[in-house]
Amino acid sequence: MASASVDGPLVIAIDSSTTSTKAIIVDVEGNVISLGRREIALLSPEQGFGEHDPRQWWTSTREAVGEAVGKLTPAEKERIKAFGITHQRESFAPFTADGTPLRNGILWLDIRAADQILRYGTPEIHQLSGKPADVTPAIYKMAWVKEHQPDLWASAEKITTVSGYIAFCLTGKWVDSTACSDSLGLFDIAKLDYDERLLEIAGVRREQMADLVKPGQTLGALKPELAKEWGIAEIPIVAGCGDGQAAGVGAAAVTPDVAYLNMGTAVNAGVTSPEYQFGQVYRTLAGGIPDTYILEVLQSSGNYLATWFRRALGKPELAGAPDPELEALAAARTPGSGGLITLPYWNAVQSPYWDPIARGAVVGWRGTHGKGSMYRSLLEAICIEMSRSLHAMEEATGVKLTAVRGMGGGLRSPLWRQIMTDAIGLPITGCKEEEISALGAAVIAMASTGVFGDTSIATAAQKMAQFTDKSEPNMDEHEVYAELGEIQGRLYSNLKETNDLLHEFAKRHPDAELSGAEE
Amino acid sequence: MASASVDGPLVIAIDSSTTSTKAIIVDVEGNVISLGRREIALLSPEQGFGEHDPRQWWTSTREAVGEAVGKLTPAEKERIKAFGITHQRESFAPFTADGTPLRNGILWLDIRAADQILRYGTPEIHQLSGKPADVTPAIYKMAWVKEHQPDLWASAEKITTVSGYIAFCLTGKWVDSTACSDSLGLFDIAKLDYDERLLEIAGVRREQMADLVKPGQTLGALKPELAKEWGIAEIPIVAGCGDGQAAGVGAAAVTPDVAYLNMGTAVNAGVTSPEYQFGQVYRTLAGGIPDTYILEVLQSSGNYLATWFRRALGKPELAGAPDPELEALAAARTPGSGGLITLPYWNAVQSPYWDPIARGAVVGWRGTHGKGSMYRSLLEAICIEMSRSLHAMEEATGVKLTAVRGMGGGLRSPLWRQIMTDAIGLPITGCKEEEISALGAAVIAMASTGVFGDTSIATAAQKMAQFTDKSEPNMDEHEVYAELGEIQGRLYSNLKETNDLLHEFAKRHPDAELSGAEE
Repeated sequence: MASASVDGPLVIAIDSSTTSTKAIIVDVEGNVISLGRREIALLSPEQGFGEHDPRQWWTSTREAVGEAVGKLTPAEKERIKAFGITHQRESFAPFTADGTPLRNGILWLDIRAADQILRYGTPEIHQLSGKPADVTPAIYKMAWVKEHQPDLWASAEKITTVSGYIAFCLTGKWVDSTACSDSLGLFDIAKLDYDERLLEIAGVRREQMADLVKPGQTLGALKPELAKEWGIAEIPIVAGCGDGQAAGVGAAAVTPDVAYLNMGTAVNAGVTSPEYQFGQVYRTLAGGIPDTYILEVLQSSGNYLATWFRRALGKPELAGAPDPELEALAAARTPGSGGLITLPYWNAVQSPYWDPIARGAVVGWRGTHGKGSMYRSLLEAICIEMSRSLHAMEEATGVKLTAVRGMGGGLRSPLWRQIMTDAIGLPITGCKEEEISALGAAVIAMASTGVFGDTSIATAAQKMAQFTDKSEPNMDEHEVYAELGEIQGRLYSNLKETNDLLHEFAKRHPDAELSGAEE
Repeated sequence: MASASVDGPLVIAIDSSTTSTKAIIVDVEGNVISLGRREIALLSPEQGFGEHDPRQWWTSTREAVGEAVGKLTPAEKERIKAFGITHQRESFAPFTADGTPLRNGILWLDIRAADQILRYGTPEIHQLSGKPADVTPAIYKMAWVKEHQPDLWASAEKITTVSGYIAFCLTGKWVDSTACSDSLGLFDIAKLDYDERLLEIAGVRREQMADLVKPGQTLGALKPELAKEWGIAEIPIVAGCGDGQAAGVGAAAVTPDVAYLNMGTAVNAGVTSPEYQFGQVYRTLAGGIPDTYILEVLQSSGNYLATWFRRALGKPELAGAPDPELEALAAARTPGSGGLITLPYWNAVQSPYWDPIARGAVVGWRGTHGKGSMYRSLLEAICIEMSRSLHAMEEATGVKLTAVRGMGGGLRSPLWRQIMTDAIGLPITGCKEEEISALGAAVIAMASTGVFGDTSIATAAQKMAQFTDKSEPNMDEHEVYAELGEIQGRLYSNLKETNDLLHEFAKRHPDAELSGAEE
C-alpha cells in the first residue's frame, strides 16, 4: 500500500464484483493508500442459475468502505472529496420504493435464459443495443422473470443494476450512470437512453428504471448518517461505469489507438470510440468518458482454460496451481508446436461468434506432440483469437492500435504474456494497480473534483495511471501466429456441425469428470 | 508351453516380423510345444526410411528354428512333417541369383515414397490390385528404387518378399506363395498373378519375380544340410500367407461371417470373401485359404495411441506403461464422456480414408472433461471407427458378422476390450495363442499333411484354434456408440481443410516434443 505522500484531494472508489466488494482510497497520483474488502456469497439455487442477495451489494460496500476509511488518519479523512462506483455488469434485481429486494439479483453469469435468447435475440437488437444475443445481457433474463414471476415483476417499483442499488443506499435516490445501466441491454445505445421496444421485451415500464446521469456527474450527496458513520464529509457520489470500461480508464486507455487488455479468468480487451459502432467480433458499451463508446472483445476462456488444463491433465498435487515445469515444457516448443491448433471454447464462445453451445477442439495431433505442446496450444489459441479480434476492430474503427495496456493475473505468466505480445504484434505495457477497475472509478471521481484544472476524465486517467514493465513483440513469431490465426479462423465454421451434434448428444447423455471451474 | 500330449504329426512354423523371427513347433490340437526367437535390427538411415539387412531374415529364421527344434526329444523331431511360413507383408529386397542382397530390404513402414504414391497411385490401381494408394504397398517404394538406383534395380536377378527369400534359403528355389507376393501390390488380384502394368510402374521384369504357388502347396523340400543341422527329415516347405491373413487362419476366422480383430499397436480386422471385392474402407489381400480373399480393415492407431497418451499426458514415472488408475478414471465415464469425440489419426489414417497426412483431433471439450474423459475418448475413437468399418464391410459382402475373434495386447485392457465389444455390438472371443500368426502358418502346414482327412485349411483351422473367454456387448451402450459413430463419420471431411493447412504449416515450422513412438 502506498502512503499518501502527495497533497490534494483523496477519493473513495468501490468495485462491487461477483465475488466481493473492494473499496480503495486513492490520491491524485493514483496511489491506493487504503483498501477494504468484503465477500459476497454466490448463490446457485438451480443448475445454471447465478444469484446474489442484493442486500449484500450494499452491506459489503458499507463494510468495505468502513474498513478502508478506518485505516485513515483524521487529516486524510478530511481530504476525501468524492466517491466513485464501478461494478459487475448486467446483473440486476427488483426492489420496492424503499429498497427492499423482491427477489434475488440475477447475475451476468446466469445462463437460465437460453430459451429467451433464442426467442428474442436478433441482429436488430444487436444493432440497437450494441450487444449480440448472448447469455450476459440482462434483457433476456428479465424476460425470463416476466414469464416466470409476472406479478412480482409488475409490482416492482424499481429494477436496477448493482450500481443503481448502491447509489440508492448511498444517496436515497434511484439514479444510475448511463455507463452502468447500459449493460442491462435495454438502451438504444446510440441515444444512451432506454428504448421502449427493449423495455417491452424485458417486461419493464420506463418508470421502473433508475433516472440516468452521465459518468462523472453527481448521482447525489452522501447521506448524512453515512458521512457521520465514516467520519467524512457529505461528499458527492459520482456516476461511474461498468468494471470492464473502468479498467480501461484505470489503464488510461482513453483514445481509440490504445487498447486495454485484461488477461484474467476470461480475457477482455477494449478500445474507446468517439461514436457508436457495432460489429461481429465485439460488443459495444457506453464508455466511462461521457458520450464515448467502448468496443469490447470478450473471450470467455483465459486463465480459466490454463487452470482447467493444470487441473485435468497437470500434476494432481498442484490442484490447478501454476506449474513452472509445465510452463518450461510449453516455452520450449515453437509457435504452433509443429501443427497443433485449438479452439478455446471450453466454456462456449462470446467474441467473435457469440455461440453459447460452442465447444473446444484441439486439432492437428501427431505422435510428436506432448503435454507442453497441448498447454502451449491452449495459450496460443486465446492469444491468436484476441489478435484476430483486435485487428478486426482496427478495421472497424479505422484507427491503428499503437499501444496495449495489460492487466490481470495472466501477466504473471511470462510465457502467456509473451505469446500474447507476439500474437498481437504490439508491446504490452503492464498496469501497476491490481484493483484496476476500482482505480478507474477513482479516476472518474477524482476528475469530478476539478483538481486537474478541468473535469476531463481522460486527463485524470493520464495523470493517475501507473505502469510497470513493457514486453516487446518478436515480429518473426508474429508472422507465424498470423498464419495460425488464418487456420484457426476457419475452424469454427468447419466444426459447427460437429459441435451442434455433440451439444445434442451431451443433452441426452450427460457426464462430468470435473466440476465446472468457477468463473 | 504345452507339452505334446497328443499323437500325430508336428509342424514347424515361423513368423518373420518387423522386430524378430519367431519359430514354433505345433501339434494337431494347436498346442505350441516349443518356441525360438531371434531379433532383427531395424535400420533407419534417413528420416522416414525403415530397412532391414535381408540376411537377417534368414539368419534369424535359422537360429530361431534351431532353438525351437533344439528343445525337442528325438521322437518329437521325427514327428515333424512340414514347415509353414508367415511374415511381415509388403517388405522386399533385390538379390543376385545365389541370394546375395543388392541393397537393404525396404519395409512396409518405410514412408520414403510419398512422391511416388502421389504420381502413380490411382483408383484404377486400387481396383486392380485391391490396395488403395498408401504408404504400405511395395509398388511405390519399388518405383522409388527404380528412380534412385536404376542400375542396381535392373541388374537384380530376383526381387522378392521376406517369405520368398526365406523359402529360397530353405529350398534353393525362388518360389513364393501367392498369398505372400500379393502384398507387394503388383498383382491383378482377381487373377492372383503379376500384372504387366503394375510391374512397369515398379520397374520390374516378370522374370525377376519369384514363381508362384498357392498357399498350402509345396514351395520345395528342405535342403539336406538344414535337415541334418536341425535333426529332422527333408520335410516339405509349405506356402503360407502374410501375417495378417495368417492371424485370421490361426483364429479360425475362415468364413465370411467371422472376423478376426487384432488389437495391437495398430488395429486390424478382416473377413474372408470367396470372391474378389474392393472398397473404400478396406484393402483386399490374397487369403491364406487358396482362391479366397481377405477384406482387411487397417487402423494405424491402436495401442500406439493409448501408449502415446500415457507417455504424453500420463504419469511420467510410468513412461507409457499401462496405468490401472487411468483406466479406472476412464471406465468411470459414460460413453462419449458427455460429448467428446476423437479422430485417432495421430499417425495418419489408413481405413477408411487412406490419407497419409491426416492428423488427430479431439473435439467437444467442456470444462467438465478431464484426463479420464480424454483417454476414454481416444479408446472409443479406435473402436467406433472399427465398428463403422466392419459394418460397412458387411454391406459390401452382404454377409452379417456372427462372431469376432480377438487377439493382441489390447485384449488385456478390460476397458478397451469392453468398449470394442460394445461398439461393434458382437461378442469378442479371445484367442489363446499369442503367436497367432505363426499358429496360422502352422495350420496351413498341418493341413498339407492330410492328418485331418483332407488338406482343407479351413478344417485344420477349426481343429487347431483355441479360445479363452468371451466378452458380451451391452446393446444400450452399442446404441450410444452408434450415435457417436455418426458424429465421428462426418468429422474427417469437416476437418480436411484444417488438416491440409496444418500439414503445410508443419512442413514450414517443424517441432517435436516427443520422439515418434515406434510401430
